[in-house]
Amino acid sequence: MNDWKDLKKALINFRNERDWEQFHNPKDLALALSIEVAELNELFLWKKAEDANKEKIKEELADVFAYAILLAEKYDLDINEIVLAKIKKNAEKYPVDKAKGTATKYTDL
Amino acid sequence: MNDWKDLKKALINFRNERDWEQFHNPKDLALALSIEVAELNELFLWKKAEDANKEKIKEELADVFAYAILLAEKYDLDINEIVLAKIKKNAEKYPVDKAKGTATKYTDL
Amino acid sequence: MNDWKDLKKALINFRNERDWEQFHNPKDLALALSIEVAELNELFLWKKAEDANKEKIKEELADVFAYAILLAEKYDLDINEIVLAKIKKNAEKYPVDKAKGTATKYTDL
Amino acid sequence: MNDWKDLKKALINFRNERDWEQFHNPKDLALALSIEVAELNELFLWKKAEDANKEKIKEELADVFAYAILLAEKYDLDINEIVLAKIKKNAEKYPVDKAKGTATKYTDL
Repeated sequence: MNDWKDLKKALINFRNERDWEQFHNPKDLALALSIEVAELNELFLWKKAEDANKEKIKEELADVFAYAILLAEKYDLDINEIVLAKIKKNAEKYPVDKAKGTATKYTDL
Repeated sequence: MNDWKDLKKALINFRNERDWEQFHNPKDLALALSIEVAELNELFLWKKAEDANKEKIKEELADVFAYAILLAEKYDLDINEIVLAKIKKNAEKYPVDKAKGTATKYTDL
Repeated sequence: MNDWKDLKKALINFRNERDWEQFHNPKDLALALSIEVAELNELFLWKKAEDANKEKIKEELADVFAYAILLAEKYDLDINEIVLAKIKKNAEKYPVDKAKGTATKYTDL
Repeated sequence: MNDWKDLKKALINFRNERDWEQFHNPKDLALALSIEVAELNELFLWKKAEDANKEKIKEELADVFAYAILLAEKYDLDINEIVLAKIKKNAEKYPVDKAKGTATKYTDL
C-alpha cells in the first residue's frame, strides 16, 4: 500500500488519542518539521553521505513525513495534487535546455 | 490518486530529464530538504499561524515532500512502512496515559 | 570583556586539542550551525516564548555562537566589520519611512 | 574594535528606528535565526565547500550574528560568558583523551 491517506489516518489517530491537536497549530507544526529535518541532517554531519546510518535515516525521515502530512492535513491539501502542480511550475523555472546538467539556481540561469 | 509511487515517478522523471542525479547524493538532498523547510517556516515568521499565506504554504510544502520522497527513493524506502513503524515506536515513547494532553518531551515524561 | 577574539581563541584551542580541524570544513560547519539552531528552536516548540527554559537557551545559543565564530574564522572574517556592513545594506533595503512598524519583507515593500 | 557591545548597539538602533521590537519576541527571533542559517547553508548546496561564494557567505553569516545577538540581548546574556561556560561544559563531554581525532558524538563515546 502506497496511499498517503492511510498514513494521514494513522497520524491523526495517534494525535487524537493523546489529545495533542491543541498544540498542533500550523506554525508549530512547521517548526517541529524543521527540528526533525535537522535531526535527519545531523546523521550526515562531519561525514560522507555513504557513511550515514541507514536505520537512523529511516526513523528521522519518517518523522519528517509525519509532520509534513499533519501540516498538509491542517490545510486540507491533497499531497499528490500540490506536488504535481509544483513539478509543473518548476519545469517552467528550469527548462530542460537551460537546466540540463547544471545545479545553478533558476535566478541565475 | 493518493499514491506515493506516482509522485516518485514524476520526480525521478523531472530529475532525469535535467541530468540532476549527479548532484543528488543523500547528504545534499537532506540539506536541500532543510532549506525548503526554512522557506516554509519563513511564511510564518513575525506572524500568527492564521495570517500565513496558504497559496505559498502549498508550494513550499510541495517542495518539502519532493525532497523527502527523493531521499526515500535513494535508500529504496517504502514510505508507508517507515512512517507506520515510527508511529509504533513513538506509541511506546509516548504512552497514552502519560502523554495525554501534555507537550512534554518523552525524555521528561 | 566583550571581545569576540577571546572566544575565537578559546574555540580554536578547544578544537585543536581534540584534533578536530580535519572535520571542520565550511560546509559541515554551516550544517553544524543549522543543527544547533534547531536545538535552540526546539526550546520554543509547542510553547509561548515566555515559557521557554532560559538556562537551556543560554546553552544552545552559546553553541550557535561557537559555530558561527568558527565559520567566520575559516574565512578570516572580521565579525564587527561584516555585521556593520550588512546593517548598512539592510538600511537601504528597509528605509525607515517604508519599513517603520511593518514586518513586510523588502521584496514586498 | 572587536566588541559585541558595538554590534548590539547598532542592531538595537536599527530595530528601534523601524519600530520592530514589537515583532521581536524570542520565539520569532529564533525562527528568523533558523531561516538565515538556511540561507547560509544554501550557498553550499550541491557544491564542494570550496566552491561556495565567499561574498555571499559574509552577508548570510552577518545575518546569523545579527539575530543571535538580538536574541542574546532579549535575555540580557553576556555572549562571552555563555560561550566560555559552554566550552567548559563541552570539555567535560568531550575529554581530550577520548575525543581526539574522532567526530563521534559524546553519547556514543
